Amino acid sequence: MCAIPTIDDILSARERIQPWVHVTPLVSNTSLNRRYGCTVHFKMENLQRVGAFKARGAHNAVFSLSEEQIKQGVCTHSSGNHAQALALAARNRGVAAYIVMPRTAPKVKVAAVQEYGANITFCEPNLDAREEAVARVVSKSGATVVHPYDNADIIAGQASVAAEVFEQADNPVDTLLCPVGGGGLLGGTLLASKYFSPSTTVIAAEPSGANDAWKGMQTGRRVESHNPNTICDGLLTTVGELNFAIMQQEQVTVVTVSDADVLEELQSFWQRTKSIIEPSSAVVLAAMRHPDVAPLLQGRHVCAIISGGNADIALASQP
Amino acid sequence: MCAIPTIDDILSARERIQPWVHVTPLVSNTSLNRRYGCTVHFKMENLQRVGAFKARGAHNAVFSLSEEQIKQGVCTHSSGNHAQALALAARNRGVAAYIVMPRTAPKVKVAAVQEYGANITFCEPNLDAREEAVARVVSKSGATVVHPYDNADIIAGQASVAAEVFEQADNPVDTLLCPVGGGGLLGGTLLASKYFSPSTTVIAAEPSGANDAWKGMQTGRRVESHNPNTICDGLLTTVGELNFAIMQQEQVTVVTVSDADVLEELQSFWQRTKSIIEPSSAVVLAAMRHPDVAPLLQGRHVCAIISGGNADIALASQP
Repeated sequence: MCAIPTIDDILSARERIQPWVHVTPLVSNTSLNRRYGCTVHFKMENLQRVGAFKARGAHNAVFSLSEEQIKQGVCTHSSGNHAQALALAARNRGVAAYIVMPRTAPKVKVAAVQEYGANITFCEPNLDAREEAVARVVSKSGATVVHPYDNADIIAGQASVAAEVFEQADNPVDTLLCPVGGGGLLGGTLLASKYFSPSTTVIAAEPSGANDAWKGMQTGRRVESHNPNTICDGLLTTVGELNFAIMQQEQVTVVTVSDADVLEELQSFWQRTKSIIEPSSAVVLAAMRHPDVAPLLQGRHVCAIISGGNADIALASQP
Repeated sequence: MCAIPTIDDILSARERIQPWVHVTPLVSNTSLNRRYGCTVHFKMENLQRVGAFKARGAHNAVFSLSEEQIKQGVCTHSSGNHAQALALAARNRGVAAYIVMPRTAPKVKVAAVQEYGANITFCEPNLDAREEAVARVVSKSGATVVHPYDNADIIAGQASVAAEVFEQADNPVDTLLCPVGGGGLLGGTLLASKYFSPSTTVIAAEPSGANDAWKGMQTGRRVESHNPNTICDGLLTTVGELNFAIMQQEQVTVVTVSDADVLEELQSFWQRTKSIIEPSSAVVLAAMRHPDVAPLLQGRHVCAIISGGNADIALASQP
């Protein structure tokens, strides 16, 4: 599958991944309703397997591959949540996972991937070295590459987040906020909204230090590479091709937020909800206070997708 | 009510507080099942109103008082979760709350109590000064004192935690772990277990730097005062009279744990569950690894009461 996922693709994805991932809760907090001036529910993908929504797409992709395609295992390059997600999905399907990680990856992330039984290949921390390492691993192992976001099965899996939200919400969701990095979650969210809740407006949020999605929508041309500078370590990549096609088709609004605002909202969220979220998730909270967004939310039913919880806890005391 | 709460007292308490408090979730985590060698569910009172189980007892006490008793408001001395809980309960009943706090109380706790509209009186940080200040406030305001734990209505309210656990659990709970400070939660937990799940064994956990409950059970005599030294700021008080009577009646086992073990389990829990818990809650986790307790839990169905989440987040990076 390499075209934009259909409603059936998303329904099949939900069924396919159901044995392997959690239905995460939709939670609210009185004090945060006041802070944001609306009735806001948080979709807690920080409580998902591997601590992030990435478990959904990875399981859909791995369990969509044929016996023939999968028998030599799967491969990806990632130092983040997709690496853990793919390692877990491969273990659940009983095949090998080959993960290429930069040699500078935090020890805790390396350990997490190892815990799922994956084979790790280290490389220099740049895109050329990563791609070269993947090519080498694939030619040696015969593994199938699973791209972290520019992949229709990944997008269909991530779409299950919003699909669940629409079932769980007591009221129709007026506005749904979603972070954007490579665009796997955003692509899936846009499609699920279109298919299951067409009255919902999706707003995408990204750090101003990695604003390729915003630029792409402004100019109508996908940004292919950039030098990001942000604490949101899950949102460093540029939007993928298929992902950008969906964003253009749905004419999504993208807003950018500063790292300072992200950190302030992250700390407020930790304190009030007792739930740890990662900076890449707090972009949607900062977006709710963005001058172009806040007035639209007042008194409405809003949902914010909390994409993951794999944070460095020392962020809590960072000024 | 000043006798040990009956089954009807607990059933009434649940009904009385139901409009004001959350039914908190019972959650599990595969990695923590492995860590503790059993199927363990966590009762997440860190997600309770005011971030701690104290909301339950305070609402039961405040809504149990007659119009006559309550009309001049309620009063207590506390710098912790009971202060916030009483302030919230008073606001919900529409009466004044007078809270005596040591002038050394953290600003964030003072602000939280103020946010609930309570009147705060500051005093020197010692027991005599606190009691004197309470007496002054009461004589001036006519408010009714609500003791944080040595009070049957408080105990009946806290009993709702365990009562909920027994309804929520898919399997009979073999062992239920509960922290002990003043004994309000423990007293309630022991009674709820006796009434609703007599096959459950309750184990109480306390920091070794505030081991009055353990000493009391060893000697058969309640410790009336001590000089605690522990990071578990919710467990500094000595067990109350009514609370100790229940502990003796039920012959509860108390185990003590070191602050170092508490901190290790707290950090492990934050990382794995993405949920912030306070040190006073992590005593039950440390107790699960106690050499006298761990062997009893292997392969059993266990529940640990996570009492609250009002933690200094800087604890995360403390060595």
